[in-house]
Amino acid sequence: MDNLKEPQGEHCHTNDVHARKSHHSDKMKTNLISRLNRIEGQIRGIKGLIDKDTYCDDVLNQIAAAQSALNSVGRLLLEGHMKSCVVDRIQSGDHEVLDELLVTVNKLMK
Amino acid sequence: MDNLKEPQGEHCHTNDVHARKSHHSDKMKTNLISRLNRIEGQIRGIKGLIDKDTYCDDVLNQIAAAQSALNSVGRLLLEGHMKSCVVDRIQSGDHEVLDELLVTVNKLMK
Amino acid sequence: MDNLKEPQGEHCHTNDVHARKSHHSDKMKTNLISRLNRIEGQIRGIKGLIDKDTYCDDVLNQIAAAQSALNSVGRLLLEGHMKSCVVDRIQSGDHEVLDELLVTVNKLMK
Amino acid sequence: MDNLKEPQGEHCHTNDVHARKSHHSDKMKTNLISRLNRIEGQIRGIKGLIDKDTYCDDVLNQIAAAQSALNSVGRLLLEGHMKSCVVDRIQSGDHEVLDELLVTVNKLMK
Repeated sequence: MDNLKEPQGEHCHTNDVHARKSHHSDKMKTNLISRLNRIEGQIRGIKGLIDKDTYCDDVLNQIAAAQSALNSVGRLLLEGHMKSCVVDRIQSGDHEVLDELLVTVNKLMK
Repeated sequence: MDNLKEPQGEHCHTNDVHARKSHHSDKMKTNLISRLNRIEGQIRGIKGLIDKDTYCDDVLNQIAAAQSALNSVGRLLLEGHMKSCVVDRIQSGDHEVLDELLVTVNKLMK
Repeated sequence: MDNLKEPQGEHCHTNDVHARKSHHSDKMKTNLISRLNRIEGQIRGIKGLIDKDTYCDDVLNQIAAAQSALNSVGRLLLEGHMKSCVVDRIQSGDHEVLDELLVTVNKLMK
Repeated sequence: MDNLKEPQGEHCHTNDVHARKSHHSDKMKTNLISRLNRIEGQIRGIKGLIDKDTYCDDVLNQIAAAQSALNSVGRLLLEGHMKSCVVDRIQSGDHEVLDELLVTVNKLMK
């Protein structure tokens, strides 16, 4: 694939919003996907608990666990984003990335 | 099913923790399960976005949306729990349910 | 004081919303007030930091500390509320207290 | 004032951590200080409510309001920080500022 030869983050500072891409390392991708697979399993597990009339407090604890796992994925992605695209776009003089980042951080802080 | 003939919440104030059950109405169960199905779809969608190197900020917005959907499920369950088991156990003189509830609310507040 | 002779929580299940009172023990009141005094000091400290152009990251850390201290006051009050008024009102058959509690917990969960 | 003649953010990328300073505009400073004054008033008000045995649910609502006001100060400061020091330090090649920022954002997200 040609993409792999491109300098990291090249796509981040294009003006074409739809062409913007992220380039996670294979290791990072595998990490994120396996975390999301586990979360998918947790959600399926919660459906099973509700179906079997499991005591609510136990189900609520499983929901808190899935939330915490999803938060971790968000933090990992945020870190990757800041260390690649955000840096690239700031260095190319595009400071709008910070407004975008602040909106997203505020959503995650809710 | 015999369960349906039992007074609602009967199982909540047993002393046998493992025997405790919740009794959601069929309508509530259908609502919770369909919300969880949608969340499962959102998680699968996020995996697809990461796989296709979608711009991180867009992925982070999808994660915030899944978190918000999971919060809603937590709130619905918390409401059902408080209005059935918590009330039942308090009325039968079992106030320990409040310590259990506070621990769970604190986890959900994180 | 006459109040001290009244059965605990007597005021909670009046129908006159404005007459509802909480009855914290003196120990609890002292604890809450001294925590709030400390938080007031933290807020004053943060004003001083901003006035002296202290590096933002240090100020943000002080803000996170004040938020965490305020959360703790909220949790203590929630616990006291649930173990007195909420129990009293449920035992006197007033289940509306749960809707009120859910609205408040949702605000604190934000 | 001599400070006003200095290029904005000059102090941000010194290696001497203790010498790092923020430079808020006078307008921003006034905004932040007046918000913090209001929060100080809210905290004092909450102490008064507890002292007068105000119904807990009302006190909890005042606490949620103070938390929300403190969050807003945090968001304003975070925005100012990102648009001055973070940009300056990234442009001067100091990417450590991102690790510092991520730690702080995670504390604020709690």
